[in-house]
Amino acid sequence: VQNFDALATELQTTWHREIPLAAALAIEVVTCAPHEISVRAPIAANRNLHGTVFAGSLYSVCVLTGWGMAWLALRQRDLAGSIVIAHSQIRYRKAVADDFLCTCRATADAQESSLEKFATEGRATVPLVCTIELEGRTAVTFEGDYVVRGHKPAG
Amino acid sequence: VQNFDALATELQTTWHREIPLAAALAIEVVTCAPHEISVRAPIAANRNLHGTVFAGSLYSVCVLTGWGMAWLALRQRDLAGSIVIAHSQIRYRKAVADDFLCTCRATADAQESSLEKFATEGRATVPLVCTIELEGRTAVTFEGDYVVRGHKPAG
Repeated sequence: VQNFDALATELQTTWHREIPLAAALAIEVVTCAPHEISVRAPIAANRNLHGTVFAGSLYSVCVLTGWGMAWLALRQRDLAGSIVIAHSQIRYRKAVADDFLCTCRATADAQESSLEKFATEGRATVPLVCTIELEGRTAVTFEGDYVVRGHKPAG
Repeated sequence: VQNFDALATELQTTWHREIPLAAALAIEVVTCAPHEISVRAPIAANRNLHGTVFAGSLYSVCVLTGWGMAWLALRQRDLAGSIVIAHSQIRYRKAVADDFLCTCRATADAQESSLEKFATEGRATVPLVCTIELEGRTAVTFEGDYVVRGHKPAG
């Protein structure tokens, strides 16, 4: 049985230590579970000139949340690999005027087949969706294609 | 004749003052011309755990550069309006391992017809493309749809 609290702490610590912008976003990992991760950020550090959350902050939290889901999927299977985003799109449906929570839920089957491909071929694309909900309505929808690459064995 | 140096200074000052994340990105407006704007950011403030530039930083600089182009287009015509991004997509073609420059070039005709619509209807969508080039090759392509809305007159 894996300790998801420890994984949440490791993920958050890594982000804050290695990515200055993640520290500026003031993000916090709230949920870390086999098929779900959620990340919170405060409006104060992320406001724009309209008094709502800056579009770049919303995107950055989404792209990290999806990355975290892929990282967690590898960790759960004891796989090592580097994860990079290749392409994404984001739709801003409602302005976000408060602290917010970004959630990524992986469908077990899709994740399993991507990671099987990664395990055999050393490379796979993992498509992930993140959303930011406000008062029961979707404010932001993000779709990202993450590429997972294995570390080639020496020789 | 408009003073584009003064507009560049105003744009950069507004970003740094009103958007904490723009200050964290350490962006600098480099070019401000009738149909072109370019924005620079350093890798140091924007690195990720691979030692390259964080995907969220690349996106944030693109979304601001496009916003700046729309802002500049309004200013050049003495129009007032609020500009928000509605939808965007970004493709990461190459990792960015150095300080980088993001450029947005507006096609005069497309911009003119959008702003004519805005002037008559009080609302228009302005599609803009931003790119980040490295050593003559395109590292990042960003396409954003910005919505420009007029301030309704009182009464």
